[in-house]
Amino acid sequence: MLVIGDEILSGRTQDKNVTQIAAWLNVQGIRLREVRIVADDVDAIVEAVNTLRARNDYLFTTGGIGPTHDDITVDAVAQALGVGVVIHPDARAILEGYYAARGGLNDARLRMARVPDGASLIPNRMSGAPGIQLGNVYIMAGVPSITAGMLDALTGTLEGGLPVLSATVGCWVAESEIADLLATTERLHDDCQIGSYPFFRDGRVGANFVIRSTSADILADVSTALIAGLTAQGRDAVAGGI
Amino acid sequence: MLVIGDEILSGRTQDKNVTQIAAWLNVQGIRLREVRIVADDVDAIVEAVNTLRARNDYLFTTGGIGPTHDDITVDAVAQALGVGVVIHPDARAILEGYYAARGGLNDARLRMARVPDGASLIPNRMSGAPGIQLGNVYIMAGVPSITAGMLDALTGTLEGGLPVLSATVGCWVAESEIADLLATTERLHDDCQIGSYPFFRDGRVGANFVIRSTSADILADVSTALIAGLTAQGRDAVAGGI
Repeated sequence: MLVIGDEILSGRTQDKNVTQIAAWLNVQGIRLREVRIVADDVDAIVEAVNTLRARNDYLFTTGGIGPTHDDITVDAVAQALGVGVVIHPDARAILEGYYAARGGLNDARLRMARVPDGASLIPNRMSGAPGIQLGNVYIMAGVPSITAGMLDALTGTLEGGLPVLSATVGCWVAESEIADLLATTERLHDDCQIGSYPFFRDGRVGANFVIRSTSADILADVSTALIAGLTAQGRDAVAGGI
Repeated sequence: MLVIGDEILSGRTQDKNVTQIAAWLNVQGIRLREVRIVADDVDAIVEAVNTLRARNDYLFTTGGIGPTHDDITVDAVAQALGVGVVIHPDARAILEGYYAARGGLNDARLRMARVPDGASLIPNRMSGAPGIQLGNVYIMAGVPSITAGMLDALTGTLEGGLPVLSATVGCWVAESEIADLLATTERLHDDCQIGSYPFFRDGRVGANFVIRSTSADILADVSTALIAGLTAQGRDAVAGGI
């Protein structure tokens, strides 16, 4: 995934698309492997697009597809893919319809019909301007609610593997007191990772242990083993997490 | 900046360190130029550390410095820098003190005293285990409140340039209706960027225009010019944003 936008790097805007797209991808049976966040800068976008699309099955970008001068994602992706930029006739028609009762299409709005040559559109039910797909690159909006609608439109259309399932075991314990148990439990089971996420709450130390696997059986086995291990050490383990 | 952690890429945890570190860097006169988010994977961390530290003045990492088996940041950074991993005597002393009334130091807790050979410590007022600095690499915690304390400790210690200042002008207008004005205003002024951040609120469309510059004079000039331009088009511009 590539997040594009000065507003994220300046700290002004809290990104929400990483979490949203990651969760959606999991359901599609696809794992988010890496994310880059770059400025509104053509060279930075081109470098990231070419690296990420080459070594991943899919690349999702967010941000920079609006009507203003700082929206340069389409031009940068086209440059990365070595194609020109064209007005997509269907995008133009969508925008003409959307803006008919909103003052009409002007040059700035027409910018949102520009796509890398050969691209398809991703429906946007919320604000007219569509997302864009070309090859394994999916160009989404920066506004999270608009991207949410685009993800809905893409649901079930990407080829994925088995969804990654997760189960959580919580415990009022300092993770450093049961670190060996976590490592041993993970090592004794194939196709599982255990993440340890400590917290401070109500003046007490605790941790949630998140088990991930593509197999529901393994997930159940590891959960049971971890709870048994914690119980054997005199800890109260809570299936489902705290 | 390099964010390390499966929990971010799985969508389970919303990252808050990018926003926090970006805002802190701005005050130090340093701009956050790029971010990568990678999994708890040594090869991915090494690749990112070596690329980012080579082409930026500073590299901040977050995550992966706790006591459990999935905390591999120190080992990966050491590998990237081509140095070994050692127990830092001051870190060991800090942890001995911190855990004296909390069950004592064990092997897992002692892991948090491990640093790349030659590193210095960054104080952690909250939970004992310190951050780590070696060369231009700053290794911070994943828990945002702990990283906040480490940033406090680093305030004023990094060499920066002029802080980037910003001013916001808000307007109840679709950004696509005044896109030309934004582009022209930015082009007519040196050392300024104008970002356009549209929103939907109370059923209305609006946008905040964020002007950034290292000069307070330029910031004031551009603000004035933008407000004048919006007013000339019959729009109510709001200094400070909506």
